[in-house]
Amino acid sequence: MFFASDNAGPVHPQIMDALAKANNGHAMPYGADTIMDEVRTQIREVFEAPAAAVYLVATGTAANALSLATLADPWQTVFCSPVAHIHEDECSAPEFYTGGAKLTLVPGGDKMTPDALAASISGEGTRGVHGPQRGPVSITQVTERGGVYTVAEIEALCDAAKSFDVPVHLDGARFANALVALECSPAEMTWKAGVDAVSFGATKNGAMGVEAVVLFDADKAWEFELRRKRGAHLFSKHRYLSAQMQGYLADDLWLASARKANDAARALSTGLAAKGAEFMHPTEANMIFCAFPRSVHQRLHDAGAKYYVWSGSLEGDDPEEMLGARLVCDWSVTEADIATFLSHF
Amino acid sequence: MFFASDNAGPVHPQIMDALAKANNGHAMPYGADTIMDEVRTQIREVFEAPAAAVYLVATGTAANALSLATLADPWQTVFCSPVAHIHEDECSAPEFYTGGAKLTLVPGGDKMTPDALAASISGEGTRGVHGPQRGPVSITQVTERGGVYTVAEIEALCDAAKSFDVPVHLDGARFANALVALECSPAEMTWKAGVDAVSFGATKNGAMGVEAVVLFDADKAWEFELRRKRGAHLFSKHRYLSAQMQGYLADDLWLASARKANDAARALSTGLAAKGAEFMHPTEANMIFCAFPRSVHQRLHDAGAKYYVWSGSLEGDDPEEMLGARLVCDWSVTEADIATFLSHF
Amino acid sequence: MFFASDNAGPVHPQIMDALAKANNGHAMPYGADTIMDEVRTQIREVFEAPAAAVYLVATGTAANALSLATLADPWQTVFCSPVAHIHEDECSAPEFYTGGAKLTLVPGGDKMTPDALAASISGEGTRGVHGPQRGPVSITQVTERGGVYTVAEIEALCDAAKSFDVPVHLDGARFANALVALECSPAEMTWKAGVDAVSFGATKNGAMGVEAVVLFDADKAWEFELRRKRGAHLFSKHRYLSAQMQGYLADDLWLASARKANDAARALSTGLAAKGAEFMHPTEANMIFCAFPRSVHQRLHDAGAKYYVWSGSLEGDDPEEMLGARLVCDWSVTEADIATFLSHF
Amino acid sequence: MFFASDNAGPVHPQIMDALAKANNGHAMPYGADTIMDEVRTQIREVFEAPAAAVYLVATGTAANALSLATLADPWQTVFCSPVAHIHEDECSAPEFYTGGAKLTLVPGGDKMTPDALAASISGEGTRGVHGPQRGPVSITQVTERGGVYTVAEIEALCDAAKSFDVPVHLDGARFANALVALECSPAEMTWKAGVDAVSFGATKNGAMGVEAVVLFDADKAWEFELRRKRGAHLFSKHRYLSAQMQGYLADDLWLASARKANDAARALSTGLAAKGAEFMHPTEANMIFCAFPRSVHQRLHDAGAKYYVWSGSLEGDDPEEMLGARLVCDWSVTEADIATFLSHF
Repeated sequence: MFFASDNAGPVHPQIMDALAKANNGHAMPYGADTIMDEVRTQIREVFEAPAAAVYLVATGTAANALSLATLADPWQTVFCSPVAHIHEDECSAPEFYTGGAKLTLVPGGDKMTPDALAASISGEGTRGVHGPQRGPVSITQVTERGGVYTVAEIEALCDAAKSFDVPVHLDGARFANALVALECSPAEMTWKAGVDAVSFGATKNGAMGVEAVVLFDADKAWEFELRRKRGAHLFSKHRYLSAQMQGYLADDLWLASARKANDAARALSTGLAAKGAEFMHPTEANMIFCAFPRSVHQRLHDAGAKYYVWSGSLEGDDPEEMLGARLVCDWSVTEADIATFLSHF
Repeated sequence: MFFASDNAGPVHPQIMDALAKANNGHAMPYGADTIMDEVRTQIREVFEAPAAAVYLVATGTAANALSLATLADPWQTVFCSPVAHIHEDECSAPEFYTGGAKLTLVPGGDKMTPDALAASISGEGTRGVHGPQRGPVSITQVTERGGVYTVAEIEALCDAAKSFDVPVHLDGARFANALVALECSPAEMTWKAGVDAVSFGATKNGAMGVEAVVLFDADKAWEFELRRKRGAHLFSKHRYLSAQMQGYLADDLWLASARKANDAARALSTGLAAKGAEFMHPTEANMIFCAFPRSVHQRLHDAGAKYYVWSGSLEGDDPEEMLGARLVCDWSVTEADIATFLSHF
Repeated sequence: MFFASDNAGPVHPQIMDALAKANNGHAMPYGADTIMDEVRTQIREVFEAPAAAVYLVATGTAANALSLATLADPWQTVFCSPVAHIHEDECSAPEFYTGGAKLTLVPGGDKMTPDALAASISGEGTRGVHGPQRGPVSITQVTERGGVYTVAEIEALCDAAKSFDVPVHLDGARFANALVALECSPAEMTWKAGVDAVSFGATKNGAMGVEAVVLFDADKAWEFELRRKRGAHLFSKHRYLSAQMQGYLADDLWLASARKANDAARALSTGLAAKGAEFMHPTEANMIFCAFPRSVHQRLHDAGAKYYVWSGSLEGDDPEEMLGARLVCDWSVTEADIATFLSHF
Repeated sequence: MFFASDNAGPVHPQIMDALAKANNGHAMPYGADTIMDEVRTQIREVFEAPAAAVYLVATGTAANALSLATLADPWQTVFCSPVAHIHEDECSAPEFYTGGAKLTLVPGGDKMTPDALAASISGEGTRGVHGPQRGPVSITQVTERGGVYTVAEIEALCDAAKSFDVPVHLDGARFANALVALECSPAEMTWKAGVDAVSFGATKNGAMGVEAVVLFDADKAWEFELRRKRGAHLFSKHRYLSAQMQGYLADDLWLASARKANDAARALSTGLAAKGAEFMHPTEANMIFCAFPRSVHQRLHDAGAKYYVWSGSLEGDDPEEMLGARLVCDWSVTEADIATFLSHF
């Protein structure tokens, strides 16, 4: 009953196997391994982007911060949701990597709307040299509240960005979960919609620690490489990043794992709804935000369930008070886990 | 015949096993895994430093840059060898992480001498607010030319540093190789000699990608944690860093692996000397710097041997011209590899 | 009829005289001039703070950014009004100088309230290592909309800050204008209320280009000096900064000039009110925000009046539409200027 | 008898007059003053560079650091003399402004030679992504030891730089002193020789605090403006920077003042030589480096002479020991000052 985060799940056996298979003799370091050549080709095919620059790093924060630093000048501001991971959960890594760029929080909720985004961009960059300049937009897909932007929504955000001539980054820490929810192609969810750079996450979806950065315009590829090295994110034994990604992509494991996670979340949501839980956000991918009584929380915690109490506090007198929960399903969650969890209601 | 670098060798099976064993169900992320608790205790025991702060990162550059950023203010200068890895091979990661501190290159060769170090420190910090201020000393052990500072030499360097009240960092990317060469204890090679912070490398010695940072004075532990997160070096699935280190330390694998690498280098050196190679640096750990004729280089390259031609160029007319080679042995080098290599002379 | 900004007014003759008087022979550079000794003493007396560290720089942005960099770690966030100068008008200088600290915009209007501030501080620093840490509060006094925090309001903001153990900076680009509006002492408006560091502006109030930074706790004085030098804000011919400040303080010129500016703004406001202008913000110091018909704006512009059209646009068909104006009075504005301006209504 | 530095001399009356003349009513702030328009035109004419971007800042360090930050990426290294002001006397401002670029010290003495420069550039940028990349060359003219690069020498350095496709910055804190020593045109000493950006100093040569940055290629003009603002170096009351530069350039005051300073240095050198002083560096502009007996130093100090004892220490027993002196003449040094100084020998 571990629903605290998909970053706490195990590595998929197929990825462990890829690591074991890669562990054979010597390999050229720093990304010159032959597995990386295959992975680069695979990712370009996955994205239908034969000229894209493709790099691997080990953390989602590195993928985001390095991408944004490559897209944003230090005197620019990055537009994002007020609850974006890059704003709330990276200890200002984007500010560090960009050399002090701002983040402008687009008013509204979890999801940015094109109008709010356009208004935010419009509001910056109007003070000449005095204010920050307009910089990239960063879209979190899946959002931090479990929502999934539709392709049309991404297109509309990109259109808003392009009308101000600023690039678009997509933080795809849960890229696969969004993709299978939308049943679209990676190209449709990214460059065809107007996205310029993607953090293509694998860690949360069954890898050990690997994320790809895909730059559809390879003009800044060398700059990215220098930033990665300088940020201490270029692995010497790079083949083990490559192998993870190889195992992740092989036989569409990444899609199957994301479907399992999303299906688990859907099943758990259905069960929770049947038990009377109240949903704060719809369950669109593998994250659930809902409320149920304190007494149930207490039983779950006593039984060892792991998840975040998202609003309110376990401590309190009223057993009927509704407290919010965030529940995240990774690829390894089983029907039995879900049934056990629901049995405590 | 792969002698290009110890960062190109395979992961030791015992470490792969530790990873496999760790890959069981869910684990708390971001360093809160229980394996990390064990690893912390183990490293404290290894260093006889029960109060030390211990952190894991995945690259040696991260270990060095984060350590130096924690020890140095942006307006200070870091004292190191002119050929130190932190100066030549990290694309200015220390400058990036410190916020623009300088590196002062202590005149001389590969190894710093206490007198040259004292003179360098003395020469900085004399211009009041106008010049950079005196900052930490960074000692590379094993050095970049394969040398090993004796404990007495480290003590003398630390004494020089302490006489100016600046801290000492030890870049131990090849910590174990130095340690077994010296046959001393980790404590003797570090804090007992006056070292304040250590990059305790494992990657080059059989791990997949893990290095510990050990801060003997834990006062700046929280600052280090913030810098690590902000630098995007805090792993969500941290247990796989912990497991690597666990496997590395178990049953003194780290010492056995380093001995194997050093022994291989000694055997190869002996063979090379017998073949008439001229040594530019003595072989003190697992790195060899020697010269032999171009014709031999050419035969080796034709046979697929991998190593750096360190001085001169393979291209050239004179088959007798002596060209330098850098040869590095990792734990996996076999007697057969050595014999094959030498057979081309 | 120049009301565009108080940074566009002339230098007061008394300050020009002080510069001329200082221009005699040689003087020790970099702040070692004897005038600085007098100025330091004077400012300590003005603030009743005999142990304060006192430094001069030439721009308000330098005073703010250096103060904040001294108070804030790079992983912290600075709390300020959404319309604070440090956020909107310094091209991210605070982000640059702090090494990438965030600015958290306290919800509400121009003036922060203690409750909103406390809620903002409370909302940050709750995510452990993942989010930015709580850093200093920066109060803009006079506010960007011409408001003046009362001493009690400053105390309440400082109390909120202190309850979270974070320091308080006061951006006093218009320090004197606020002070004379409040009729309190500099100590009352600053350290007695809980302020730790002040940007004590003089440029907008008749100097050529000089601002003092006053650190009531001198512990970080040396760090400030290094940051100032490194930021390229330590003047070699420092005596001309000192002389400006000397002239500014002599015979309470600074208070008299601020009174003149505030009086002019009051007189102009009274006249505007009599003409039917609608006030967006009360006129509490030397800044006026009010609306009047487009036709009047057009007459004023035709007559050469300089000020910002703050809302709406001069271009438009409806002569009766109310457009906002920002009007700022500096010490040199005359009764005749005001009368001429009003004559166009 | 003030020979400590030319940054300690008074402002020339013509510049004070220009300031007084500019102090009339209101002026548009932030560089939009009409005097700046004239100054821009004048400097373009002085440099025969009608398309150059021209900006004013108040300190030489700002001019240098902002220029270098505009020319250098953070992962590059700047090539300069080991005794360059940007290395020794700016508290790492270039490192701060560039975001952590390195400075590579070209081996040799005060003056870089083309061969040493080419060797230095050649030695960097050879390690792919691992080492710092080749960045701009910075030439200090007048050098820190009082030398003046000939036009041919500058050309040769620029040729070396251009052969590696890196730009050239000239730190002209004493630009005028070098120019009149060479009797060449500003264009000949800069862009005609291959220089891309100039810090055109005025402060040391009679201004109060103003330096121009001249970018012969205006492509990065807007970036420079943003960096200047963000560095807090954009003056609101900019007209007083403009006026200084206007007064400085009017009627070739700048050339006359530099000639006076150089002539004074020559006269003092001649006198010193006649008294038996031993010269460490030839006197080519307005700086003198020579040695004379301790007893003379002591008499001079007792008489109130100000200059740096450059080598050795006033404290010591041997009255005949030769101690080095650095003596700098600014425009205001008189024949009487020189005669008085020499009278103590």
